[in-house]
Amino acid sequence: MKKVLVMHGPNLNLLGEREPGIYGTDTFESINNEITAKANDLGFECEVFQSNSEGALIDKLHAARLDCAGVVLNAGAYTHYSYAIRDAIAAIKIPVIEVHISNVHSRDEFRNNSVISPVCAGVIAGFGKNSYSLGLIALKDIIEGE
Amino acid sequence: MKKVLVMHGPNLNLLGEREPGIYGTDTFESINNEITAKANDLGFECEVFQSNSEGALIDKLHAARLDCAGVVLNAGAYTHYSYAIRDAIAAIKIPVIEVHISNVHSRDEFRNNSVISPVCAGVIAGFGKNSYSLGLIALKDIIEGE
Amino acid sequence: MKKVLVMHGPNLNLLGEREPGIYGTDTFESINNEITAKANDLGFECEVFQSNSEGALIDKLHAARLDCAGVVLNAGAYTHYSYAIRDAIAAIKIPVIEVHISNVHSRDEFRNNSVISPVCAGVIAGFGKNSYSLGLIALKDIIEGE
Amino acid sequence: MKKVLVMHGPNLNLLGEREPGIYGTDTFESINNEITAKANDLGFECEVFQSNSEGALIDKLHAARLDCAGVVLNAGAYTHYSYAIRDAIAAIKIPVIEVHISNVHSRDEFRNNSVISPVCAGVIAGFGKNSYSLGLIALKDIIEGE
Amino acid sequence: MKKVLVMHGPNLNLLGEREPGIYGTDTFESINNEITAKANDLGFECEVFQSNSEGALIDKLHAARLDCAGVVLNAGAYTHYSYAIRDAIAAIKIPVIEVHISNVHSRDEFRNNSVISPVCAGVIAGFGKNSYSLGLIALKDIIEGE
Amino acid sequence: MKKVLVMHGPNLNLLGEREPGIYGTDTFESINNEITAKANDLGFECEVFQSNSEGALIDKLHAARLDCAGVVLNAGAYTHYSYAIRDAIAAIKIPVIEVHISNVHSRDEFRNNSVISPVCAGVIAGFGKNSYSLGLIALKDIIEGE
Amino acid sequence: MKKVLVMHGPNLNLLGEREPGIYGTDTFESINNEITAKANDLGFECEVFQSNSEGALIDKLHAARLDCAGVVLNAGAYTHYSYAIRDAIAAIKIPVIEVHISNVHSRDEFRNNSVISPVCAGVIAGFGKNSYSLGLIALKDIIEGE
Amino acid sequence: MKKVLVMHGPNLNLLGEREPGIYGTDTFESINNEITAKANDLGFECEVFQSNSEGALIDKLHAARLDCAGVVLNAGAYTHYSYAIRDAIAAIKIPVIEVHISNVHSRDEFRNNSVISPVCAGVIAGFGKNSYSLGLIALKDIIEGE
Amino acid sequence: MKKVLVMHGPNLNLLGEREPGIYGTDTFESINNEITAKANDLGFECEVFQSNSEGALIDKLHAARLDCAGVVLNAGAYTHYSYAIRDAIAAIKIPVIEVHISNVHSRDEFRNNSVISPVCAGVIAGFGKNSYSLGLIALKDIIEGE
Amino acid sequence: MKKVLVMHGPNLNLLGEREPGIYGTDTFESINNEITAKANDLGFECEVFQSNSEGALIDKLHAARLDCAGVVLNAGAYTHYSYAIRDAIAAIKIPVIEVHISNVHSRDEFRNNSVISPVCAGVIAGFGKNSYSLGLIALKDIIEGE
Amino acid sequence: MKKVLVMHGPNLNLLGEREPGIYGTDTFESINNEITAKANDLGFECEVFQSNSEGALIDKLHAARLDCAGVVLNAGAYTHYSYAIRDAIAAIKIPVIEVHISNVHSRDEFRNNSVISPVCAGVIAGFGKNSYSLGLIALKDIIEGE
Amino acid sequence: MKKVLVMHGPNLNLLGEREPGIYGTDTFESINNEITAKANDLGFECEVFQSNSEGALIDKLHAARLDCAGVVLNAGAYTHYSYAIRDAIAAIKIPVIEVHISNVHSRDEFRNNSVISPVCAGVIAGFGKNSYSLGLIALKDIIEGE
Repeated sequence: MKKVLVMHGPNLNLLGEREPGIYGTDTFESINNEITAKANDLGFECEVFQSNSEGALIDKLHAARLDCAGVVLNAGAYTHYSYAIRDAIAAIKIPVIEVHISNVHSRDEFRNNSVISPVCAGVIAGFGKNSYSLGLIALKDIIEGE
Repeated sequence: MKKVLVMHGPNLNLLGEREPGIYGTDTFESINNEITAKANDLGFECEVFQSNSEGALIDKLHAARLDCAGVVLNAGAYTHYSYAIRDAIAAIKIPVIEVHISNVHSRDEFRNNSVISPVCAGVIAGFGKNSYSLGLIALKDIIEGE
Repeated sequence: MKKVLVMHGPNLNLLGEREPGIYGTDTFESINNEITAKANDLGFECEVFQSNSEGALIDKLHAARLDCAGVVLNAGAYTHYSYAIRDAIAAIKIPVIEVHISNVHSRDEFRNNSVISPVCAGVIAGFGKNSYSLGLIALKDIIEGE
Repeated sequence: MKKVLVMHGPNLNLLGEREPGIYGTDTFESINNEITAKANDLGFECEVFQSNSEGALIDKLHAARLDCAGVVLNAGAYTHYSYAIRDAIAAIKIPVIEVHISNVHSRDEFRNNSVISPVCAGVIAGFGKNSYSLGLIALKDIIEGE
Repeated sequence: MKKVLVMHGPNLNLLGEREPGIYGTDTFESINNEITAKANDLGFECEVFQSNSEGALIDKLHAARLDCAGVVLNAGAYTHYSYAIRDAIAAIKIPVIEVHISNVHSRDEFRNNSVISPVCAGVIAGFGKNSYSLGLIALKDIIEGE
Repeated sequence: MKKVLVMHGPNLNLLGEREPGIYGTDTFESINNEITAKANDLGFECEVFQSNSEGALIDKLHAARLDCAGVVLNAGAYTHYSYAIRDAIAAIKIPVIEVHISNVHSRDEFRNNSVISPVCAGVIAGFGKNSYSLGLIALKDIIEGE
Repeated sequence: MKKVLVMHGPNLNLLGEREPGIYGTDTFESINNEITAKANDLGFECEVFQSNSEGALIDKLHAARLDCAGVVLNAGAYTHYSYAIRDAIAAIKIPVIEVHISNVHSRDEFRNNSVISPVCAGVIAGFGKNSYSLGLIALKDIIEGE
Repeated sequence: MKKVLVMHGPNLNLLGEREPGIYGTDTFESINNEITAKANDLGFECEVFQSNSEGALIDKLHAARLDCAGVVLNAGAYTHYSYAIRDAIAAIKIPVIEVHISNVHSRDEFRNNSVISPVCAGVIAGFGKNSYSLGLIALKDIIEGE
Repeated sequence: MKKVLVMHGPNLNLLGEREPGIYGTDTFESINNEITAKANDLGFECEVFQSNSEGALIDKLHAARLDCAGVVLNAGAYTHYSYAIRDAIAAIKIPVIEVHISNVHSRDEFRNNSVISPVCAGVIAGFGKNSYSLGLIALKDIIEGE
Repeated sequence: MKKVLVMHGPNLNLLGEREPGIYGTDTFESINNEITAKANDLGFECEVFQSNSEGALIDKLHAARLDCAGVVLNAGAYTHYSYAIRDAIAAIKIPVIEVHISNVHSRDEFRNNSVISPVCAGVIAGFGKNSYSLGLIALKDIIEGE
Repeated sequence: MKKVLVMHGPNLNLLGEREPGIYGTDTFESINNEITAKANDLGFECEVFQSNSEGALIDKLHAARLDCAGVVLNAGAYTHYSYAIRDAIAAIKIPVIEVHISNVHSRDEFRNNSVISPVCAGVIAGFGKNSYSLGLIALKDIIEGE
Repeated sequence: MKKVLVMHGPNLNLLGEREPGIYGTDTFESINNEITAKANDLGFECEVFQSNSEGALIDKLHAARLDCAGVVLNAGAYTHYSYAIRDAIAAIKIPVIEVHISNVHSRDEFRNNSVISPVCAGVIAGFGKNSYSLGLIALKDIIEGE
């Protein structure tokens, strides 16, 4: 059974509490449970990881290259300026799917720019917590070489 | 049975022939067959429409507001400058999902900007022909108010 | 009796239905009736034309040069990028008045730029359906060489 | 009988003398007479005011909020940089119509930008001295809640 | 005998009538006759096509890939923003030569930017109606693999 | 007893009336009374001055250099473009504290830029009428060489 | 007794040693003692926290939402690019006051832009170590709903 | 004997006191005496005028068109943004020479841009108080049609 | 027999050796022989000149105004920044045709900008060594006043 | 014996594995051994440090100010946006040499900008692993006050 | 008797012939005679030098540092991009006055930017051939320490 | 014995005299002696060349491709705009090392941009005259294929 990593960046641990008009009212824990269930349904072992630290997220991406078949990544605000995370994604050879809960293009202007998109396999944004499920389905298609 | 519209913009009729390194080798017809099958699986009636004309795409979006529950739209190059299509999407009240076959963010710089993203429900890009399937799944979630 | 053309660009056929907070609740048909009545009051024969197609709008401008004394044009979103419509206005020799229903300057930033203004006789924006009436009055002043 | 204010900004006192190719040859006095006559025709008492001073224009706008039903404003070159006049327009609650004698969009590039447009009820530009008359008609429509 | 397509974009049907100071006084018909004669001299069958519609121009480029050896294209104002035409040129495999009647670099600033140049075989601009003849000569060199 | 000047720029005389959602409902007079009381508490004689005229504000700054120990300045919209006020602040040798009632950084983009900040001793923004009190406390610290 | 957090970002632990011409010669410890004393005077319990790590600063802001009434934050260089800290401030519901020791607007150009200002309650900059005291006074006013 | 106007804009009344490293230590009065003497030497009657008010400077330029043969203008900071003064210079028909005491190009970046230069006869900058004398000599050459 | 000048700018002497993927493998000498033959065929005497020095190219353009009927100029990299060569072209009265071997618009971004295009009669780019021949044909049309 | 610090930023721990076309195939360990040997040859004790965390890199720079004579720093992607590392370098008084393995100027555009260069003693880029050796030699010259 | 250098940059040797509407009809020789006469009147020996070569102009500036008291420099188009001439001016210690025949600010946009102004003593532009005379007078003032 | 070229661009012949605070006090001759000695130590024959002329520098680079194994180039101010030198470097096949005496990144903003870096093997900046020595060492590593 292949393993996938679902990684949340900064402030996503406050999901359910933070700006519910934008991010919804489900708690972080319940969303992670749904993610894990979905991943299992798709035949994946699933690890969920969250950190507010850019360095810790890079460390985890490095580690994933050794034991994961792919990554679903919501990099939060680091999406918009972390060239270091971009380099980490480019350095590891497994596919990384960029996901966002909200439609980043209809919010603040700075959220229109993603520095990690060019090195990700694809992008999914705007579907609430379903963005993660869609990311897992997309990842399965890629891993299975479909 | 609700109906959905899958709409292709300019040059997508040449799929399978046009720059296969970027867009793949499946023919336009076979991709449309897969799209229709996927929509049916999800419980939707599905109409597929392609035009190279901005005006015809707008006319079709207007028509869809009367008989469709939602739209999956690959606007091709119009994505990057058609404020008229943007206004059409904003004017109709059904959800529109923006999809792209390639990861537009890793190609020409002008492809980084989508003028329609801010009025679409969400965006899916980079998964080849699977972008359409993912768009249909996402649309189903939205229509079913999940 | 001189003839004038009142021309509506993309999505204006949805007037009354589209974003009523911005565009009002009068139907497209009732607005056109008011426009025609106003034109008649001012001593003009009046043709009303709408299309979502950039090419059809250009074709109509070309035709108008042969049988109209002037044009009142709401180019909709094409206002902001259609250099082809701009060239058509410059190519025909009759006066063209640019009108907008809403105050385009208080909305999205891209609506601040009109590529057709430099070749129009004048600009009227922000007065709801009255913008068309004001455009007709202004056109009469120009045609009568006042 | 309601009162309206027609306000001219810097250098407009030289009308008839200044760059007649752009601004026409009617004298400032004769234009003001026509404006007053037009306002009276429309059922308004009319005050005409001109100043080259940004502060005096703001003072007058403040005063107008107490005894006028609306303002027709040609802010001259202050149109392009006076955020202070913009704030004054936003601060008073009566409608202000922005007018220009020439088509500002077909002249110097700096004249393409109006910092006051976003807070005005509407904009009329390019119709010579008739821009003021059109502004008064437009104002009447707004005041009468048409 | 190989066939070439000479394609005119928006407003070029008004040649001879439109801004003669820039575009000359030859009629559209006489220019097309000269183009056809020149093409025949060079040993080509020649089809001339004009449309004001972006979509129709794209449709024609798609059709040309099946029966033409190359295209001489004056895309008119679409030159400056039609990424859809750009994609059509890139999608078909026959050479396309970009031509302009006037020297676009000495006119409005927006005419300095061509979005289609990067995918055309070459560019010829500024030689009046002779730009088409030069384009045909250049096309012959390319087709004959010289 | 040292004297300080508290200076209000354009439109601030309408405080309490102008956009109360942004500027609060206290009247200009009551705020000035609070400011004077606070200054007295801090051991300062206090003059309050308001003008809508850029020139009058500069004149007052020049005068203050002769009889005041420092200035608390809310330059209103002039903050964003008056290089003349900037030069006046740089020319006089007493400290000037820039204050704003609202958080200018969370409003219109043009309010993000202050041309006077580089020559002011410090900046205080966003605390409603308390911004003036904080400015007076800050000024006291500077004057007393703390 | 309510608790407030005073948080220092990167390199501020070197205060007294780092560029004393800009930041002064008081040691980090003595400044913190003054801050704590001032907070106590104002009736607050006070925690002081410093970290060079963006992630640790975000973690601390998250923690503060549970036991603090407000935050005085000098984010150091993160002020200019940490959208992640910005999101953290927006996510927690307690007021955050942005402070800077030096007048950031009179230094390097990149220091003119604060990405956190739009989500802070207010900004205080340029008063040396007194910026913290002024921040605490401002915070008290906000917390007490004054 | 022809009359010339030498006009000083904002803050120049503080010459000798304001930033002497840039502007020198001569008093405003002594400089004006030298200017008058130089003008007399050149055979001109000379009026010197200073104001901090943009409106007053415009009023004076308007007046000068009736009784002066030319103007030497140091517009101070208004140089960089007063399109109203620019319009005043363009509106009057007498020659205006732009002068600056310091070399504005070696100071702040905003001082590199003069909005009045395009409508002035010529520009002289960087020669201290001698810039005025050079301006008078240049004006004499122009007036005498040399 | 009229004389034409064909002028090559910097690094073009290395043709055949320099980046053959872009510039082809013909030697500089053989290309010049072909150019001369073509010019003779067209009835021109032809001088070929190459220099790496901006000044020498300007000197040669000056000289050409006295004995040549026109110039075909490949200015190499000077195309993109030599305003001095631009001024030389504008100063001489004979027509200058700008040519480029490669399609400069599909290469580095800096090659998209030509500072000499606005003062050249026309532009030909992208046809390899044939660009020179096309330039000579175009020049003949211009000289013969066709 | 003086000590120097050689510090590697994010993702450099994957050297030998990450994009070998750009970074070479030597392992991180072997490169560090060569660095240490070179430093010893030059008479330095050498500590090698790598972290993916911006905060940890800043902490280490702070520590180095107490026991090192200088630093050779490859900040990886932080080079392009970490103003916090920039401030750390400026805050410590020992010389820091910026090195890069690849020629950052011939890669992605964002790699052209280094925010740390202005505060480093010098820059060395493009020489593969030799960049570190050259950095150590350069550091020796500086430390020995050559 | 002190010596001054008057230096003309590219294309100025064509004065009298080149664009006489801008540069006048006096020949280069007659202008140089007037310059020399004026310099002699002011008590200077005068050398006049012209070159189209950037390098030759730099060589001459280097030479002038040894035998001239100052330079009047019309750098022609090099004004707008020659950082090498800028460095030469900064490197020599004698004063250099930048002059232009036409008012560069009322012509092409690229002529608004001078890269040499920041290192020149002052700037004089727009007075035709008199700009040189004014430059010599200004230079005399500087040399005599007035 | 292989030969290397050390090439100095404009104004570097004034080393020791020009702005010694930036460039040091060693004379040009003594620095060249050190460079030659260093090159000899490394086993290279060494030619030193300086010119203020862009064309002469290009000529020399062309010549070097025939008899040198590599180049150490300080292009002076040409670094920032000479696309012609860039093309020369790209055209020759021997490695070129870009060196600068000062840290160009901590000086004027225009010095931050090098147009030649993308085609050089590597860059060394900021180490005074030692930059040349480091460049020679780096060149040796490249030539020896280390």
